[in-house]
Amino acid sequence: MSSPTVLTIAGSDSGGGAGIQADTKTIQVHGCFATNVVTALTAQNTIGVQGVHEVPSDFVKQQMKSVLSDLPPKAIKTGMLASSNVIRAIIEELQATYSTENMPPMIIDPVMISTSNHTLLPSDAIGELCFGLLPLARVITPNIQETELLLRCLRAGKSVPHHSDVMVGDLVKEQESGTGDRIQSINQMVAAGKEIASILQAKDLTVLVKGGHLPMDKPSLKQALHGLASDKTITVTWKGESSGADEEQEGFIEVLHAYRDQLQIEPKKNEEKYVVDVLIDASGSKVDLFVAPAIISASTHGTGCTLSAAIASNLALGKPMAQAVSEGVDYTQYAIVTAEAKGEGHGPLNHGCIVARRALMLPSSGDPHPFVSHLLRSTSEEWQSYVKHPFVIELGKDARAHSLGAYKSTSFAEIQAFSEIALHIAKESEMHVQFCKSFGVSLEDLQQATESPSNSAYSQYILDIGAQGDVTELLVAVFSCLLGYGEVGLYLKRKLEDGSGDVVLEGNRYKRWIEDYSGPDFQGAVNRGTLEQRMIADPPSPARLARLTKIWSDCVKLEANFWQMGLDRS
Amino acid sequence: MSSPTVLTIAGSDSGGGAGIQADTKTIQVHGCFATNVVTALTAQNTIGVQGVHEVPSDFVKQQMKSVLSDLPPKAIKTGMLASSNVIRAIIEELQATYSTENMPPMIIDPVMISTSNHTLLPSDAIGELCFGLLPLARVITPNIQETELLLRCLRAGKSVPHHSDVMVGDLVKEQESGTGDRIQSINQMVAAGKEIASILQAKDLTVLVKGGHLPMDKPSLKQALHGLASDKTITVTWKGESSGADEEQEGFIEVLHAYRDQLQIEPKKNEEKYVVDVLIDASGSKVDLFVAPAIISASTHGTGCTLSAAIASNLALGKPMAQAVSEGVDYTQYAIVTAEAKGEGHGPLNHGCIVARRALMLPSSGDPHPFVSHLLRSTSEEWQSYVKHPFVIELGKDARAHSLGAYKSTSFAEIQAFSEIALHIAKESEMHVQFCKSFGVSLEDLQQATESPSNSAYSQYILDIGAQGDVTELLVAVFSCLLGYGEVGLYLKRKLEDGSGDVVLEGNRYKRWIEDYSGPDFQGAVNRGTLEQRMIADPPSPARLARLTKIWSDCVKLEANFWQMGLDRS
Repeated sequence: MSSPTVLTIAGSDSGGGAGIQADTKTIQVHGCFATNVVTALTAQNTIGVQGVHEVPSDFVKQQMKSVLSDLPPKAIKTGMLASSNVIRAIIEELQATYSTENMPPMIIDPVMISTSNHTLLPSDAIGELCFGLLPLARVITPNIQETELLLRCLRAGKSVPHHSDVMVGDLVKEQESGTGDRIQSINQMVAAGKEIASILQAKDLTVLVKGGHLPMDKPSLKQALHGLASDKTITVTWKGESSGADEEQEGFIEVLHAYRDQLQIEPKKNEEKYVVDVLIDASGSKVDLFVAPAIISASTHGTGCTLSAAIASNLALGKPMAQAVSEGVDYTQYAIVTAEAKGEGHGPLNHGCIVARRALMLPSSGDPHPFVSHLLRSTSEEWQSYVKHPFVIELGKDARAHSLGAYKSTSFAEIQAFSEIALHIAKESEMHVQFCKSFGVSLEDLQQATESPSNSAYSQYILDIGAQGDVTELLVAVFSCLLGYGEVGLYLKRKLEDGSGDVVLEGNRYKRWIEDYSGPDFQGAVNRGTLEQRMIADPPSPARLARLTKIWSDCVKLEANFWQMGLDRS
Repeated sequence: MSSPTVLTIAGSDSGGGAGIQADTKTIQVHGCFATNVVTALTAQNTIGVQGVHEVPSDFVKQQMKSVLSDLPPKAIKTGMLASSNVIRAIIEELQATYSTENMPPMIIDPVMISTSNHTLLPSDAIGELCFGLLPLARVITPNIQETELLLRCLRAGKSVPHHSDVMVGDLVKEQESGTGDRIQSINQMVAAGKEIASILQAKDLTVLVKGGHLPMDKPSLKQALHGLASDKTITVTWKGESSGADEEQEGFIEVLHAYRDQLQIEPKKNEEKYVVDVLIDASGSKVDLFVAPAIISASTHGTGCTLSAAIASNLALGKPMAQAVSEGVDYTQYAIVTAEAKGEGHGPLNHGCIVARRALMLPSSGDPHPFVSHLLRSTSEEWQSYVKHPFVIELGKDARAHSLGAYKSTSFAEIQAFSEIALHIAKESEMHVQFCKSFGVSLEDLQQATESPSNSAYSQYILDIGAQGDVTELLVAVFSCLLGYGEVGLYLKRKLEDGSGDVVLEGNRYKRWIEDYSGPDFQGAVNRGTLEQRMIADPPSPARLARLTKIWSDCVKLEANFWQMGLDRS
């Protein structure tokens, strides 16, 4: 399936920056299809949350049934889960639909604690999340505070016979008071992530401890990395600009470092601080550290939703775990740094940063030849002047026009490299020589004839395109001739068949001309769709499409001049 | 603002195909920013609606306040509005926020009647929509049944003093029974649209009567258009493949008609039927007819939401009304024909059809030189072998290597067309000649010297790229040298400054070499960002980026061979 479904279970953010809105935007631009189970509605903007409307757990359940029964997801992610009843409803529907083996990967963003260390979920919901939902996860993405709280709960859960007896409320108070174990180093992040994976004992569980709340200056970072250097299970990946951060580092590129200052890009305000995300793989035997410059930006609302939705999309697309997470981190970072300010508070990310508007649609049953349609629509007047040129009409009537095809062989002889086309050109030339012979002009005469200005202009143009442009540009230039002659051949043939337009074939010395250009051989060459296939393989940017259209337009005009030359001489 | 905000007020479709989900996806791919006021939640999939959870009108009001106060929209669209209280809440918030003059354009998709002619809104809500909300609209997009019902209500409203006295329930019954005035022709669509605009007397109101429920065969269509041909206020636009529908039509293209059959695209199942959307402009004095082939597809769930959201996005982007609607119709059509089947019933449209994944990110503070970073990341081993080549190290130590720069001037002499670079090449050559002189090799000797194989291979490669590729490809080929020498210059200079690597300057015969390549002149040439700017102006497709990367990689390897040649001769 080219566009896999990703289900997100989260709240609605009216402000569009977080929740199912951030999820849906992220999933859409990753080329996946988003479905949503809404757990809560918020009246929210960049400044804060002005109201919450809880969705009854029965209706959450009903939404789960509707989507799971008809639109099976390739990945699932959860965000804000509101209450223990809602979490229970989700667990029940997942377990009713899937066995442990066939469940698609679930990414849990355990939204529990705000940046200011305040708990966002009731205690019983935190318990349900830890002991009910987490064991079903494939990936969990806690920030540092959430990692601390998860660990408190999971540790406590180990020592009591029933999870419902865990005094989550007390643990939350401890967390909010700032006492007990805190995570203050990369080492501790790694250890905490490993312990969570170990307690949960879930098959293939991946823990991503997000280090955004623990920015480090360069000396601390270097010291921390130095301390970990001997651990061969740890891989360090430098993200974005951080790869130029350390002159001692393998792969440091001097010239890019010098380069950066000269580009007119607003410098990061806090470029000397770094954050590290820690990825602990299923077995806990492999750890990836993603090092990135800390970004000071107001456009961070919905960062956690966005990252987890991006990971879910990448997994749905079939990417391996480490790549799915690494690209998710890159996407989120890029969406923050390219965001424009919106609203008075913390604005949304630029979710559209990884896509661009197509300059040209892909072929479809609605338009099977979008490139050629575009060329013709862009030049409809010139095109009509070319294919319905008075000379064409005269051709049908067998007026005494000179054979002009032979003039073309000069220019076409230069581009024999296009072997497919060349075959037809050879046939054309042969036909044109025969024509000339029938008019009393020998091959020798032809080769000695002086080129007319219209002819030189056209052949020179084609040669210039061939020299300056790439193969596609040359093909477009040549295609105006192919398509035009094909059109004229078919047009005259139809006029002939329906008896309109005084077109006659018998006794018309262009009989063979009309028959050849409307015949299956030439039409086959016209219709190959080479150009459409090139556009699919290498979709043009707006600038490139404009350049190709200009070449087409120039050639169509030059072709019309060509007919005019024929008419002038007749 | 590069990404204008579009507010949608509608229901949530858990199945992701309609409602705020369709709106958000549409707005996102149009490059706008979506905010959402949720009026109702549905548990829904492609088969049907399994449950509805109504949102209290107070909470709708709260969402309106949150978004309007902080994220002012450039356009607003409404979809499913649930109840008269919800509609009242919306009207109140709009009127509290805006005067008639400063309200952004509102597009109302008056969702009232299902395809099977069943009413979806309570009667009092229909009354509130007609008499309260419609007068605030800039565009309304009813289908034929909705046009009929709107007209019944508005006509009745004209003859009673208070709108609340209109017996909407009776009118709905009449509509559902199929009695009374029906719209069965293009003429009647035009007349109905004009009458709605006239009764509402709203400034700038545009009515789009959607003809999807009135498919016509070709003879009926031609007859209808023939009957309208004398009306000069009417413009007919043929959409997509329909432009090849009529041989008698101006602009009919024979060769495309023949072309289509040869492409391996599944034919439309119902290509002989056509639908017409009727756009009546503000004054009712101009009418656009959009003719398109009727599409038989199961992927039509959310078509109305998608069209109105696309129109809203186009208006938010500042496009004129006729273009905004016309492009909205194109987008919707394209999203239907390119959709893949999803679910057991009526599946969603392909909302992502107009965007493509960027092969290369735009520059940002996170990565100010994404193209060069990409090239270096893709070839990091080759790059290290080039810029940290043993010869480079020897160069810093002033080993007895031959001057190799002069060899390069041969290849560079060929590309003097790059005038910016050429200036530096001239300087380089002069320096290299000086070098050679200091080694006892005269200019004459140089010019008579036989080219080494490494040198010919490299210069031939550059010449080939120049001949076959376009200017960007040639620039990439040349840039590997620029960047590499810049890197080596800076690298040796830093080694020199921090005393590492045995690099000495005094007495080193490459002193000038190191000083020149690390100096501001050469570094200025390296750092111009020409390539990044080219990538912004003409974003590469994945195929093109791969081609450029291959050229870069080839050149980096050839450059390393070049150093090797120097080392071998020393």
